[in-house]
Amino acid sequence: MKKDVHSLALTRAGIDTYRQPVVYMREDCDLCRAEGFSALTKVGIVLGERSIVAALNVVTAADWLSREDAGLSEAAWQALNAQDGDLATFFHPEPAQATSSIRAKVYGQRLDAAACQAIVSDTIGHRLSDLDLAAFITACAGNRLDIDETIALTRAMKEAGQTLDWGQGPVLDKHCVGGLPGNRTTPIVVAIVAAAGFRIPKTSSRAITSPAGTADTVEVMTPVALDLAAMRRVVDLEGGCLVWGGKLDLSPADDLFVRIERPLDFDSDGQLVASVLSKKAAAGSSHVLIDMPVGPTAKIRSPEAARSLSQRLLAVGDALNLKLLIHHSDGSAPVGRGIGPALEARDLLAVLRRDKHAPLDLRERALDLAGALFDLIGDDAHRGRSKAVELLDNGAAERKFFAICDAQGGFSEPGAAAHRLPIVASSSGLVRAIDNRRIGKIAKLAGAPNRKLAGVLLMTKPGVRVDQGETLYEIHAETPGELAWAKDFAMAGPEPVILENQS
Amino acid sequence: MKKDVHSLALTRAGIDTYRQPVVYMREDCDLCRAEGFSALTKVGIVLGERSIVAALNVVTAADWLSREDAGLSEAAWQALNAQDGDLATFFHPEPAQATSSIRAKVYGQRLDAAACQAIVSDTIGHRLSDLDLAAFITACAGNRLDIDETIALTRAMKEAGQTLDWGQGPVLDKHCVGGLPGNRTTPIVVAIVAAAGFRIPKTSSRAITSPAGTADTVEVMTPVALDLAAMRRVVDLEGGCLVWGGKLDLSPADDLFVRIERPLDFDSDGQLVASVLSKKAAAGSSHVLIDMPVGPTAKIRSPEAARSLSQRLLAVGDALNLKLLIHHSDGSAPVGRGIGPALEARDLLAVLRRDKHAPLDLRERALDLAGALFDLIGDDAHRGRSKAVELLDNGAAERKFFAICDAQGGFSEPGAAAHRLPIVASSSGLVRAIDNRRIGKIAKLAGAPNRKLAGVLLMTKPGVRVDQGETLYEIHAETPGELAWAKDFAMAGPEPVILENQS
Repeated sequence: MKKDVHSLALTRAGIDTYRQPVVYMREDCDLCRAEGFSALTKVGIVLGERSIVAALNVVTAADWLSREDAGLSEAAWQALNAQDGDLATFFHPEPAQATSSIRAKVYGQRLDAAACQAIVSDTIGHRLSDLDLAAFITACAGNRLDIDETIALTRAMKEAGQTLDWGQGPVLDKHCVGGLPGNRTTPIVVAIVAAAGFRIPKTSSRAITSPAGTADTVEVMTPVALDLAAMRRVVDLEGGCLVWGGKLDLSPADDLFVRIERPLDFDSDGQLVASVLSKKAAAGSSHVLIDMPVGPTAKIRSPEAARSLSQRLLAVGDALNLKLLIHHSDGSAPVGRGIGPALEARDLLAVLRRDKHAPLDLRERALDLAGALFDLIGDDAHRGRSKAVELLDNGAAERKFFAICDAQGGFSEPGAAAHRLPIVASSSGLVRAIDNRRIGKIAKLAGAPNRKLAGVLLMTKPGVRVDQGETLYEIHAETPGELAWAKDFAMAGPEPVILENQS
Repeated sequence: MKKDVHSLALTRAGIDTYRQPVVYMREDCDLCRAEGFSALTKVGIVLGERSIVAALNVVTAADWLSREDAGLSEAAWQALNAQDGDLATFFHPEPAQATSSIRAKVYGQRLDAAACQAIVSDTIGHRLSDLDLAAFITACAGNRLDIDETIALTRAMKEAGQTLDWGQGPVLDKHCVGGLPGNRTTPIVVAIVAAAGFRIPKTSSRAITSPAGTADTVEVMTPVALDLAAMRRVVDLEGGCLVWGGKLDLSPADDLFVRIERPLDFDSDGQLVASVLSKKAAAGSSHVLIDMPVGPTAKIRSPEAARSLSQRLLAVGDALNLKLLIHHSDGSAPVGRGIGPALEARDLLAVLRRDKHAPLDLRERALDLAGALFDLIGDDAHRGRSKAVELLDNGAAERKFFAICDAQGGFSEPGAAAHRLPIVASSSGLVRAIDNRRIGKIAKLAGAPNRKLAGVLLMTKPGVRVDQGETLYEIHAETPGELAWAKDFAMAGPEPVILENQS
């Protein structure tokens, strides 16, 4: 391409703006002056067949960017598939089609199917700014999306990405709304359900803010980054799989909404439902069990909130031909002993292997969920839980789990961290509570989820009496430095295991 | 300060994120890993007595930032008053108090005085992210702020900054809601009103997106960046002044809201009213004339919208002891001949000097507004306009204008640009319209507002017949390069002066 007044050479700024495409230009560059681009302007960039809209950050005083170049954030770099020195064309973008739909919603009008499609399409195409997305999410917050709008948004999100088709017969799935630390039931449920001969092609996510996601935990034991062809092979062979959803392009707008909802710290029932069910529908599921932990510190805090959300889930599921069952579970405490990928893997393996030290709470929750799934598909007249117990206790689930791992590329036993430190009780007392946020942070400081073996192993539970000097939990780390790091933090602040005699 | 695990050395990234404090950290820096900071996390930074909350951008691949350093955007650098190498402490900030007020408003609750104060205070303290601010603005959009909330927000915005007190007697002011290109009436109105012996301590802004703001235009003729003491001296001496408001800290939250409203491209009547009246109340005004151009391409597009906004302005003005008069004017076309600081200064000087070539539309508008202000303070039984005409035509306004300039630091005659290019009609026809956006962009390409002499001089008006080869407008520039730049743009696209015979 000829270099003209609308072109600059691209350079990789190496700045992660968390998926927001940002372009960095010198304030004295001809293009900034010519186009009247100023900080926070939306700038259109064309490179070959690709085009994006990026937010402009004006570089005033740095020497890392020349007047002839435009720096791109990681998100922009990847979206354009740029190479260093590529000449790109810059333009003032027309407002995205979706901005008028968002404005209409902000002013109180309802979203129809076309509006939802425009919003989803412009979101995926990076034609909306973070501010536009925040406005959209705010305009839908609370109960401002009605059922019809929720259905339209769910459909638009589903249809914007890949949709899987598994042919005849039921396709089972599960999802947990607002996870609890250590609540790693999915691999156990998949093993039990697949052992019963049902199809459960499970996709999971990696951790966003927690010390481990299901995909992180399973990856300790077997490869999870399968493409669609490999996933199909596993499911055809074993009935179930445990793969990371990130390679499959299911409901791609969802991640982009979540990245705005998370820092805003609010969402709407409508968007939560669209998020969950668009992925399930895109994954080709027919029967979906929703685990909904309810508790004062869980995402769903009251029975009323659980009821309202459940009604909406059922109505939208109905419209998308998804048969749903909502399972309300206890959301008042963490589950199992380990926090971190390998430590959680060891918990769930212990359950599958019927180890006598296996965490009972994790086992019971997995059995509840597998049983509920059996009931949902109308199998065996509400004797689902007995069937789940049988398949776990007779070793069928264990065998199925290892068969799935073999099909995904082979099983590895989770290792143990080389560096461990017991944290002991400084006084005696009854364990009153465990601060999930602090204990999770210690696990992350120790290296989880990137260091697979790192995390925290809880040695006690609420309701248990501990003596002075008894171990409350162990910090596990892969390096001495990370161990020290986590220890310093653990020692500096309040004890995460809270004893009754403490204030 | 001892360097500990929570400290990094500050370095100036030189990136203008348009007032959003952003901190750049290496992904492999100890602090990112230790604190679990990831892209878009809010990070608290303490340096000496100052602290801010900044958005984190993680630097993945650049060599301009070391693992020991944290880069700051211009807004963060200035807010912390940082010096290169300063050791700052970093922490996970508690959510700002205002976020719960914003969330409540998002969910449909009303804002009370305390909520408005928290939102304004956390906005000024940079404790809210851009996303939080977008949510706040969205939650108030349309008519979602009622009159009481608008009053509470206006009061909170006023009280968050400096408030001026001029003592006894009326203090006059004017404001234009949604300006038109070239509508530079303010200096003329101030001169007429002050010549009548009234007090009009006028503060104005610089251009944000236009080729000139009132402060930019006045600065061509006299210093405008006066501090409060200097402003008082001028007003005590001459009754009026024409200063830039940027040094006076009047309603400081306003600019921070505007920078989010502008890219979102919507606001609310409530926020517009709070923005205008908080500044007027903080400036100590008692009588305020609001010029409200109404037209299909103006900010206020219909008589109904003008009526609704006017009612709200009057109600809030009443609550804040501001006596308001709303003047609805024709918003269908630009005003005067010049576009750009010096060119607009020459127009208004021509009016003050009663030059026979002075633009009549600018003169008439200024007289309407000055007359309306006289009527507002109840002077001379609705003969305000005659009084304004008399003060302009007898030279009193001209003398007052130069006296004000002398008091502000002396008058300079606006220069003329060294480089000019006439753009001629390629065919004959009746001028049907002038594309304000395109003509404004040509003026900005030519260098306005930073190059004071640059801009566009219109040689024709809608309704006038032009012959082929006749000059439609001149481009004025300070350098040959900028002239070429503006010319290339003018030649490349559609003619901004639209003739009747063109499609």
